[in-house]
Amino acid sequence: MTDTLPFHDLAALVRPQIDRLNRELVQDLAPGHREMLPLIEHVGGFRGKQLRPLLTFLSGMAVRGATHGGGLGDDVVTVAKVVELLHTATLVHDDVLDSASVRRRIPTVNQMAGVEVAVLLGDYIYAKAFHMAVQLPDPTAARWLAETVRVICQGEITQVLHRFDFAWTEARYFTVIAEKTASLYAAACRLGGYYGAGVAGDGSAPERSGGSEVRLRALEEYGLELGIAFQIVDDCLDLDGDERVVGKSLGTDLSKGKITLPLLYLLQRGPGEAERLRAVLGRAEAEALRRLRSEFALEHAVAYAMDEARRRIAKAQASLSPLPPGPARDALHQLAGYVVTRRL
Amino acid sequence: MTDTLPFHDLAALVRPQIDRLNRELVQDLAPGHREMLPLIEHVGGFRGKQLRPLLTFLSGMAVRGATHGGGLGDDVVTVAKVVELLHTATLVHDDVLDSASVRRRIPTVNQMAGVEVAVLLGDYIYAKAFHMAVQLPDPTAARWLAETVRVICQGEITQVLHRFDFAWTEARYFTVIAEKTASLYAAACRLGGYYGAGVAGDGSAPERSGGSEVRLRALEEYGLELGIAFQIVDDCLDLDGDERVVGKSLGTDLSKGKITLPLLYLLQRGPGEAERLRAVLGRAEAEALRRLRSEFALEHAVAYAMDEARRRIAKAQASLSPLPPGPARDALHQLAGYVVTRRL
Repeated sequence: MTDTLPFHDLAALVRPQIDRLNRELVQDLAPGHREMLPLIEHVGGFRGKQLRPLLTFLSGMAVRGATHGGGLGDDVVTVAKVVELLHTATLVHDDVLDSASVRRRIPTVNQMAGVEVAVLLGDYIYAKAFHMAVQLPDPTAARWLAETVRVICQGEITQVLHRFDFAWTEARYFTVIAEKTASLYAAACRLGGYYGAGVAGDGSAPERSGGSEVRLRALEEYGLELGIAFQIVDDCLDLDGDERVVGKSLGTDLSKGKITLPLLYLLQRGPGEAERLRAVLGRAEAEALRRLRSEFALEHAVAYAMDEARRRIAKAQASLSPLPPGPARDALHQLAGYVVTRRL
Repeated sequence: MTDTLPFHDLAALVRPQIDRLNRELVQDLAPGHREMLPLIEHVGGFRGKQLRPLLTFLSGMAVRGATHGGGLGDDVVTVAKVVELLHTATLVHDDVLDSASVRRRIPTVNQMAGVEVAVLLGDYIYAKAFHMAVQLPDPTAARWLAETVRVICQGEITQVLHRFDFAWTEARYFTVIAEKTASLYAAACRLGGYYGAGVAGDGSAPERSGGSEVRLRALEEYGLELGIAFQIVDDCLDLDGDERVVGKSLGTDLSKGKITLPLLYLLQRGPGEAERLRAVLGRAEAEALRRLRSEFALEHAVAYAMDEARRRIAKAQASLSPLPPGPARDALHQLAGYVVTRRL
């Protein structure tokens, strides 16, 4: 195992599955009315690293120590598609919440077609995703993912309700990011393992080849810790990322009063900090960022948060130990490392 | 059969089921975090006529000619709850789209807690509804309802994309209201019949007692026509309803440029009407309404639309003929009549 394999090489193991997923998603989303087609095509432009479907495929292999992705059945592809669509739906609605105008260098749906269309298109994609999930003979994915979306929304609502709440604690912060972000990673990994282990076609008599609860729990734990790290890194990138690389404007968390880990660090430095911070937050993004950098030594806060992200990644990697060794487990291990080095 | 039975008497047949539904919905929606509780309780205040769950229960009885609701199993209650929750989710998002501040005399979620919370709370309720649907042993409801929500969103998006589009036709108007409104009524009726007819507990070997495709189609058709009539009446109430009775401000469709049936009637009166109308639409609601009334003889347009609604209701009632006679079929017949006489 090497720690230097670049991201695209990690994905190479399941490249045919990723390609199939992207081919099919275009057709799956095809709307009944031609007016909607430009919207659907536009949303296709948000396609990013596709980390979640990649995790689903690799988990499907890793659970039974497979050496290539050829044995991944149709159900795993369906699960990966559903996970990717659910993620896309949350992005479309997140951009509404953040009044964001740019995502991955192209206009957001709300920017292009208005808030109303963006809200409805998010709903449309959610419904399409659930409809695909309930076509699976085994209802496990549909049940798990419906609950996951509920938990995601619960986390997001709680976060919104606590904006500018300087009494927020790290414990509650971790609960909320586990809900709003990490739960979908955990589901992507666990369900990839579950369906990848092999389920009888009619769903009536599951025959597993390695999908023991211990291994599924290992994958779920891996996804959860990786997802928490991912969100912490996201918080940090909003503060010290490169706008041109990240592909969206920075400092939006600050102006929205989102309580992030770097901010919690600053709040914990001593009494009086909350008052000083309050004067900075809620300002225009660039100005808030500038003052945080100059007056609060933001780099220490980011370093503190990144330390936590690296601890989470180490925990994610350690979670993989119950899985049989092989290239998929190795890829998952390295993928986790990528999360804390990424710049977008 | 009498045509004068008031609405609450129609519901009396299934009162215990409606009561159980309302009792359970409060518990079902209970959030994981206490901060969300006021939101959930507030949404409970939107409870209206509960026409859709009522239709589900009556359809479940009518499909087998039952004389009382006692034989309705848990699955029918679940379907009714899911339908009501999906409807609630669309209301919460509709209020965001319309920037509405009042619904049923209480503040909308966006008014009370902001657009962000309203978008997320709608998503939360959708997810909760799907999660309940996928608990049913027989996946028919989950599949049908996921597709229904997709269709609802498709209809709503198409409507938004065609605001102020005076080249809109009646045919497209009917397609869109069938999608955005009537599809959920059709689902409520068909699925009430499907699960009411009796399904084996484990979902593996459905034993129907009357749930033939002919009867299910009859219920679906009934729900579809009733739903189309319901939307037409809604369009009319926005133009000539009593604000105090309807419980929300009137004329909002006009200022939003929504193409409704009364408006299509006005457009069809002759060349030049589109230009004259364009000058009125998009104005402040009260002013647009006042000018429509004085310059366009709005009452004729409303009468035209109400005629169409009554034709649809007659069609809905005729659809019921394949069902065995009995109190539930009678109640469905009279309920349809109620839709065109309602004032809220």
